[in-house]
Amino acid sequence: MSDILIAREELDFLLWEWLGLDRVLAESDDGGIDRESAGAILDLSAKLAANGFLPHYKLSDNREPELTASGVRALPEIGAALREYAELGLFSASLPPDRGGMGLPALLANASFAQFLAANVATAAYPMLTTANARLLLAFGTEAQIEAFALPQIAGRWFGTMCLSEPQAGSNLADVATRAVPDGQDALGTRYRLSGNKMWISGGDHDLSENIVHLVLARTVDDCGEQAAGTKGLSLFVVPKILPSGDRNDIAVAGLNHKMGYRGTTNCLLNFGEREGAIGWIVGAPGQGLPQMFKMMNEARIGVALGAAALGYRGWRHAVQYAGERLQGRPPGTAPGKSLPIVGHPDVRAMLLAGKCYAEGALALVLYCARLVDEESHDPDAAVLLGLLTPIAKTWASEYGLAANDIAIQVHGGYGYARDFDVEQLWRDNRLNPIHEGTTGIQGLDLAGRKLKDAAALALLRGRIDQTVAKAAQEPELAGLGRRLAKAWDRLGMAAEVLRASEPDVLASNATALLRAFGHGVAGWQWLDRALLCAGAGEDAPFRAGKVWACQYFFEREMPKIEVWIAPLLAGSALPAAIPAACL
Amino acid sequence: MSDILIAREELDFLLWEWLGLDRVLAESDDGGIDRESAGAILDLSAKLAANGFLPHYKLSDNREPELTASGVRALPEIGAALREYAELGLFSASLPPDRGGMGLPALLANASFAQFLAANVATAAYPMLTTANARLLLAFGTEAQIEAFALPQIAGRWFGTMCLSEPQAGSNLADVATRAVPDGQDALGTRYRLSGNKMWISGGDHDLSENIVHLVLARTVDDCGEQAAGTKGLSLFVVPKILPSGDRNDIAVAGLNHKMGYRGTTNCLLNFGEREGAIGWIVGAPGQGLPQMFKMMNEARIGVALGAAALGYRGWRHAVQYAGERLQGRPPGTAPGKSLPIVGHPDVRAMLLAGKCYAEGALALVLYCARLVDEESHDPDAAVLLGLLTPIAKTWASEYGLAANDIAIQVHGGYGYARDFDVEQLWRDNRLNPIHEGTTGIQGLDLAGRKLKDAAALALLRGRIDQTVAKAAQEPELAGLGRRLAKAWDRLGMAAEVLRASEPDVLASNATALLRAFGHGVAGWQWLDRALLCAGAGEDAPFRAGKVWACQYFFEREMPKIEVWIAPLLAGSALPAAIPAACL
Repeated sequence: MSDILIAREELDFLLWEWLGLDRVLAESDDGGIDRESAGAILDLSAKLAANGFLPHYKLSDNREPELTASGVRALPEIGAALREYAELGLFSASLPPDRGGMGLPALLANASFAQFLAANVATAAYPMLTTANARLLLAFGTEAQIEAFALPQIAGRWFGTMCLSEPQAGSNLADVATRAVPDGQDALGTRYRLSGNKMWISGGDHDLSENIVHLVLARTVDDCGEQAAGTKGLSLFVVPKILPSGDRNDIAVAGLNHKMGYRGTTNCLLNFGEREGAIGWIVGAPGQGLPQMFKMMNEARIGVALGAAALGYRGWRHAVQYAGERLQGRPPGTAPGKSLPIVGHPDVRAMLLAGKCYAEGALALVLYCARLVDEESHDPDAAVLLGLLTPIAKTWASEYGLAANDIAIQVHGGYGYARDFDVEQLWRDNRLNPIHEGTTGIQGLDLAGRKLKDAAALALLRGRIDQTVAKAAQEPELAGLGRRLAKAWDRLGMAAEVLRASEPDVLASNATALLRAFGHGVAGWQWLDRALLCAGAGEDAPFRAGKVWACQYFFEREMPKIEVWIAPLLAGSALPAAIPAACL
Repeated sequence: MSDILIAREELDFLLWEWLGLDRVLAESDDGGIDRESAGAILDLSAKLAANGFLPHYKLSDNREPELTASGVRALPEIGAALREYAELGLFSASLPPDRGGMGLPALLANASFAQFLAANVATAAYPMLTTANARLLLAFGTEAQIEAFALPQIAGRWFGTMCLSEPQAGSNLADVATRAVPDGQDALGTRYRLSGNKMWISGGDHDLSENIVHLVLARTVDDCGEQAAGTKGLSLFVVPKILPSGDRNDIAVAGLNHKMGYRGTTNCLLNFGEREGAIGWIVGAPGQGLPQMFKMMNEARIGVALGAAALGYRGWRHAVQYAGERLQGRPPGTAPGKSLPIVGHPDVRAMLLAGKCYAEGALALVLYCARLVDEESHDPDAAVLLGLLTPIAKTWASEYGLAANDIAIQVHGGYGYARDFDVEQLWRDNRLNPIHEGTTGIQGLDLAGRKLKDAAALALLRGRIDQTVAKAAQEPELAGLGRRLAKAWDRLGMAAEVLRASEPDVLASNATALLRAFGHGVAGWQWLDRALLCAGAGEDAPFRAGKVWACQYFFEREMPKIEVWIAPLLAGSALPAAIPAACL
């Protein structure tokens, strides 16, 4: 079963050959990791993912978390797997050594984590949230807060959450209504009493860790009872389930959300302050809640994208395996006889090729972004590029990872619809990814309304693309694709220019379509860039030859969609904005 | 809740105004149904669907059928709803009056049935299968067989199944291995003893009806034990769960399949003849099993398409309703203030417009095909057109109905992913439709490898399209779209010509893409045809104006995809066939 997770050959190709992990390791401040130890971490991750995370994948879907009088009870197998994960020090993989972390570069940490996400995304969500929480505290918390709340998370003893959404405030955080009233000062900083309802809190309650550290976005209330307004009124608070005194904080589980997938991750409606107010300490300066969250947003969104890619990847691998084993019919034009494996049918191959383009392409795109996370500390251009690519990677991986899962079901036929196989669950699990951490529509507005407004950012990206085009010109097998890539990006560049001059209605009517177009443009660029490393590979090197085939497929059947997506913008259409709601 | 099913305004528009149900009723042999009684049937269907089928929609998803020592137990609420359905005579809606049926034209019967599919597709599957079974017996059974097995189904006392697939024989029925050994003769015809395993049998066992009538595809064995080979060796047998003697037949439930959706419909692995052989009677002539099934295939596939359209339609209606109620943020470019309903965001409207095009377009396409079923008895052209449109309608409704369900989840955000709302279940239920009754790949081969080979069939379709183009030329508002429709069909016609001259590998590598291209071509034609009925509608007629808006949207953002899908075929590409399996 374990060969169904991320293939090591794929990871090695992406990390060492395409993304230059060697160089990243050499440039890393934390040092100490060489190629051999990196390989050992990847081995270890693949093994624990296969032996600790994968075995309870179906079980945690069948046996959902339960709400009891004493709180939420999760599947014990999840706790057992996460204890092993903690023992290996993986909670701290990407955190700095001076805080007890392993100091892995983001690129390596993400490659390692991809195995866990592929094996069991719902179990892996706990360390993902915990690491993000600890990282925020390291960045903005006081020394005392870090010691009290971040270190136990880095050790994997306590788990963390992010409490942003409320029942009435999802995509629009300006509507957050949770109140925080000052309540004095102590060693952990300025203390507040919080009250309000937080919705969709992943890991919001469970019995898997000794304590749960909530990071809560709330609105401060001043001494006169005046509430700070707008997004500038939002601050970040650290609010533990169990207080340093050992007492339970005033946080109640008001309900458990029953999701279509991702079921092993408990998901709660939490009521803060049903009694005297939940005790929390402000993290950083007042009014900085949103900017602090947004500083972490790129990494959070890349985390979602990595999960989406990993789910899509595993589904696709199941499909490739099944198509090689399942005997059914014979392709048209072949002589009659016994049934052959369905991989022999061109239509099945077309599905698997599309799945390969989506699944491998998404994984590659996300790891590319992870490398930019490593680069941004010493290269401001990388930070700009990362900002531009984040909405693209988040959406492309979420939507095409899901498409790879859909293909995997289709390749399995009726069996793919049965719960005995994993492919249907992978599809259900992945459906969350275009929704959380900013829906596709929100990513579209981020790209079209913000990121593309910066022409210099796009020029940076185009510079990298032109390097690929130049390399392709030297490679007869791929030179034609290089010219097509350049042309596609000329058109995308034109679309960005038109966008900058567009009225708000035109922008809003085309933002998501533009996001899709840029997604395909980026995926096509990266497919060609990887294919260039493999040009000339023959039948004796099927892994490498497959990269060239997939690239050709993507340019033949996917890249032309770009034109369909940008055409309405280029024509200045605001049709969706124009239709009266009553006509829907 | 009931206004969430198929809107009566929509049905009236499609039936009376677009599809001329008046004329169909007048031409019907069975007569007796006028506009008033047709309206009463539609009222009745909407009411029973809302009050009898909808209320246990979630429940039948949560409480799956159970396999017990005495057989499969289904949710009692399903049985109660179906008894009401039987009492109203709806099992026999489309069957001839001389057999106890209501004699409704297919168009009206499908419009009525769409309400039940929208409300609860899994409960509606029982009468769908039962009617199909009875219809087959009426067409090919002896008078004694009809009396013994069809009439109790027409009355809704017994339910029926179709037993085609086997664990090793799904898409390729030539691999069917169930054996039928002659066992004498009696009043019900030539008797056989059947043995073999049948997989994916919907309604294969349950406690909802007094008896279950299986129609089983099996291979006859002659007196020398010689088994008939190939598809020509397959015959059809009627095999009841309980024999006319009152004894249980030799049919065992070997397992219950646990599906991702559609859970209220029991789905079984049945073992026929574990002991002395299950008793069955041959229906029609030996060796005619497949042709008999295929004679019913158009209607079966249209039934699947209707379910897919109905599920997509309901999901989309939920989304429209939710978008009008959910307050969140404000569209870019509007002044700050309180949150507005999300329908105000152009991106949400774009999603809802796409959903409208898909959901209403699919329902319209399926009902168009139902009208062809009515026409084919007196118009051979209608039969040819129906043959051409069936794979298109089956796939387009299945894939775009599902896409409408996906959109509905996205519009609901996190709530759409929670099982408290119906939209996630509608999506799961609908995922079966691109698989059963011939996968999308099989439909592609049917269209490209068979139906499009008949240039006269395509010419017939083009004739109807040209009528729409001619009407559009008279309507300034829509004349431009008419010209674009004609151009698109010129290209599709060219693709069909290229296809006819293509090598098998090129055909098989492009069949599904071509199916998608024709699907959009047909949907675009029908959208324009309906919009022409509504041209000039103003703000005071939002239902009609909405048809024009949706048509414009479809031409702006969907029709250009046709070119993407046909381009590889026009270039003669066989890329999917060429890639070695090891490179995947």
